[in-house]
Amino acid sequence: MTIQNWQIQAQKGKDLLERSVPKQWLVPADQLPPVTQKNVTDFPRKSGLLTDRELGITELSATELTSGMGKGELTAEEVVVAFLKRSVLGHQLLNFATEFLAEEAIARAKELDEFYKTTGKLIGPLHGVPISVKEHIGFKNKTCHTGYVTWVDRVTTKDAHLLQLLSKAGAVFHVRTNQPQALMHLCSENNITGKSYNPHNRTLTPGGSSGGEGAALGFRCSPLGIGTDIGGSIRGPAAFCGGYGFKPTSMRNPMVGIEVAAAGQESIHGVVGPMGPASIDDLELFQKAIIDQEPWNDETSLVPLPWKTVTPTRDITVGIMWDDGVVRPHPPVTRALQFAKEKLVAAGIKVVDWEPYKHDYAWDVISTLYYPDAAGLQREMLRKSGEPALPLSEWAFSYGRPNPLTHHETWKLQLERDIYRDEYNALLKSREVDFIISPNYSGVAAVMGESHYWNYTAIWNLLDLPAVTFPSGLKVDKKLDALTEDHKNYTPRNEADEREWKKYEGPERYEDAPIALQIAGRHFKDEETLAASKVLEEIIRDGNKGVAV
Amino acid sequence: MTIQNWQIQAQKGKDLLERSVPKQWLVPADQLPPVTQKNVTDFPRKSGLLTDRELGITELSATELTSGMGKGELTAEEVVVAFLKRSVLGHQLLNFATEFLAEEAIARAKELDEFYKTTGKLIGPLHGVPISVKEHIGFKNKTCHTGYVTWVDRVTTKDAHLLQLLSKAGAVFHVRTNQPQALMHLCSENNITGKSYNPHNRTLTPGGSSGGEGAALGFRCSPLGIGTDIGGSIRGPAAFCGGYGFKPTSMRNPMVGIEVAAAGQESIHGVVGPMGPASIDDLELFQKAIIDQEPWNDETSLVPLPWKTVTPTRDITVGIMWDDGVVRPHPPVTRALQFAKEKLVAAGIKVVDWEPYKHDYAWDVISTLYYPDAAGLQREMLRKSGEPALPLSEWAFSYGRPNPLTHHETWKLQLERDIYRDEYNALLKSREVDFIISPNYSGVAAVMGESHYWNYTAIWNLLDLPAVTFPSGLKVDKKLDALTEDHKNYTPRNEADEREWKKYEGPERYEDAPIALQIAGRHFKDEETLAASKVLEEIIRDGNKGVAV
Repeated sequence: MTIQNWQIQAQKGKDLLERSVPKQWLVPADQLPPVTQKNVTDFPRKSGLLTDRELGITELSATELTSGMGKGELTAEEVVVAFLKRSVLGHQLLNFATEFLAEEAIARAKELDEFYKTTGKLIGPLHGVPISVKEHIGFKNKTCHTGYVTWVDRVTTKDAHLLQLLSKAGAVFHVRTNQPQALMHLCSENNITGKSYNPHNRTLTPGGSSGGEGAALGFRCSPLGIGTDIGGSIRGPAAFCGGYGFKPTSMRNPMVGIEVAAAGQESIHGVVGPMGPASIDDLELFQKAIIDQEPWNDETSLVPLPWKTVTPTRDITVGIMWDDGVVRPHPPVTRALQFAKEKLVAAGIKVVDWEPYKHDYAWDVISTLYYPDAAGLQREMLRKSGEPALPLSEWAFSYGRPNPLTHHETWKLQLERDIYRDEYNALLKSREVDFIISPNYSGVAAVMGESHYWNYTAIWNLLDLPAVTFPSGLKVDKKLDALTEDHKNYTPRNEADEREWKKYEGPERYEDAPIALQIAGRHFKDEETLAASKVLEEIIRDGNKGVAV
Repeated sequence: MTIQNWQIQAQKGKDLLERSVPKQWLVPADQLPPVTQKNVTDFPRKSGLLTDRELGITELSATELTSGMGKGELTAEEVVVAFLKRSVLGHQLLNFATEFLAEEAIARAKELDEFYKTTGKLIGPLHGVPISVKEHIGFKNKTCHTGYVTWVDRVTTKDAHLLQLLSKAGAVFHVRTNQPQALMHLCSENNITGKSYNPHNRTLTPGGSSGGEGAALGFRCSPLGIGTDIGGSIRGPAAFCGGYGFKPTSMRNPMVGIEVAAAGQESIHGVVGPMGPASIDDLELFQKAIIDQEPWNDETSLVPLPWKTVTPTRDITVGIMWDDGVVRPHPPVTRALQFAKEKLVAAGIKVVDWEPYKHDYAWDVISTLYYPDAAGLQREMLRKSGEPALPLSEWAFSYGRPNPLTHHETWKLQLERDIYRDEYNALLKSREVDFIISPNYSGVAAVMGESHYWNYTAIWNLLDLPAVTFPSGLKVDKKLDALTEDHKNYTPRNEADEREWKKYEGPERYEDAPIALQIAGRHFKDEETLAASKVLEEIIRDGNKGVAV
């Protein structure tokens, strides 16, 4: 087999990653769990690499970490070292990183410790919090390939605006994370650094496109991470890997310096937001740290809405969307919704059923608007290097119309998008529903290569509603989630429904996968949506963050 | 000459207008000023149609009208009758209307009077204020042709969102107003109801595309009117006709139900805003009445920014842009800027020169983004009826590239637009300039058919900055604005500069034209921009609203 030019290019990305791994913390291959071991979440404890104190540190939330540093009980340096060590382990098992930033992260942590020692104060609300960063978020003088071989040695000249703000708030960037080719899978595989794995079950994908972040949070390689989302790319990975994610309303978080092939495309706005293993409080900490810096003063595409402090209340009406009318959720997902409903009703929350409104139509609109050019730009990016399109890239490219739209067709769809948004908003108002709880995905996670149906998340992108993903506390259970006769006799309503339903051959296929829920709020009610999610999560999980059946 | 099909269609629009004119107030043709009389602003007083009380009413501002109605000194009915009578006169002389709404306006005014009689209260902040409405803003069950013959009998089924809100605030819609073919001239001529004229000088255009509104405010046919603006279409007519206009930042005022051929085009956002003859206070009255109703609750494309009350302050820095570096302003415009500078400096306002930043590049970007489809849609609209393209339509259609852009080219330009916005914003910050005073247009107004260069207004559309147009209080003066040797020896910098400079053959060509100024503020600082404009206008005009030389 001859080596292709694109492979020589791709190797540069692999080499960069390889060189960046802090070798002193690598565990010898023969001491790693066997590749056949699916669930590797217990390995940090078993590896012997981390001290008990370090293990303890990596189990803290970002909020707890800053609190500990504020009291002088923790140093930023020991915090970042603990997470770096855990990241090295995680990377060995899950291939989630594209580049380690160990030296500069430790140097930065030392500066922060010095600042604290000198002033007795934290430098900002994210003082010393290690944050992992999806690769296509640009760093000054570092490569940024966004999953394309042709861009493998393209260097960005400035830090993304978001990174500048996080840095001012005290964040420490310790590792950059993997994403799929063309940034458009809910799996995460590319021809440069390969695919990432789900720490709960390595036959599953960690999700995508922020899949490196998903794996990282599932393995607690960082207390906070940054993902981007145009169809579920924050929420899919957070859900599949048992963590938290927030997709804000667009035009709130800064986007300048986040690299994509189709820069300037604005039919559907991509957004950037926080992901993490620990809590909704951490998502809010991240949002507040950014927006309190008034990013709209420099990035004029943003809306000048200050971050509001919202008092959580139980006086809300929650609609439960059991099914989007297109693709039936798998049994464990429905079980988690039932579980949530029982808890909420018992707690006195007003709960109603949410009847979906034209989600099939919505999928047609959004999937066409992802690629008004019939993915011509993306295909051109692949052609430039000669790298092959991966199956899920081809799948995504084929969502829209087979030929490029005219501008008139695009404008018509943009108009339809706005009408649909107003209609959906009017329904929320007339039904007096404040928040919608729904599945994140048709299943608990996708088997590697099978993430085909995104519309449980993409619907809120089309509608531009803020949405929070959080773990229900449940995981897949062999008994409770076994296929019943009813399940076996289900007659799918359409091709997608048939395809997705067939994938649930039984709970074994999704062994150990956590089950997530999603809460969407009204347009621009980001603060209210996070506040409500805290209330609802606490009720659903009885304040217990351990994983229950 | 045979009558073409399109002419039969167009006649329907003329007939509709003709039928709607309240005949009882028409002045016989032989009692009108001769067509050779340029300035007709004194005719309302001379016509004998309006009583002194009615003349007085039509000289009040919207703010004064509501105040008078609140005290029971005026009735809504007499107010709307006065403005209707003046509108009929104005229409006879200026052809500014597309449809009179006399019966329904009077009926509505009577309802408001009844409400006041019963409750002792005004129904809302615009109680009884007659408002004229640009034709392409949809009315329930009325035609809406937006300047295209092919749409001459197209009926809209709902009131535009904006009209619903204004109506709730108490407005009375009494007349609909003219606009150019394809909505894209700074003159206002179409093949249906023809061209409108400038009341100060009927050899001049009232401007466009809200040219009917311009003529209306110049003749005081309404105390407030509604225009739309994607390149200067509010500010041009307000300037040419000696009045006030406000182009808000986009995504603040409701746009649903405002009809355009290229609906869904969003490379450059069109906006809607107030125009009027009387004051900046009236512009603010309009804005506050709309935004206090929180239109974002129904129209989700809008940003949820409440209307702020801003205390006017003199502690501001004003940059004066004497020239955009592309097209040199005509002598009277420069004189008004000098006049303004002297007044502001004398009043202790901090004034600096504003060096324009790449306005030629900006024009290239915006003029291309107006028509990414090379105006294919607009041409198709003309082809449908067979109506000929008017010269200024052809001029506008030719702004962009000769062939449709690909989506990739459009996205690239959208990205450039955003980068340019951020760069311009950074300049405002680094130069510590809060507001920019500039010309509205290269001249005081355009001779009919000559409105070719829009970039003194369009620049603020590309940058999406709020901008206020107001009269300097000066008008063209034969002596002060005569061509000097310096003027005659000016060597133009480019083709556009040459074309525009040549038009200034001397002050006679623009006899009696008022001279306007424009103030732009920072993105989303709409309230601050209006507040500053009030301060600056008061200084420039010494509190004197009469027209001085």
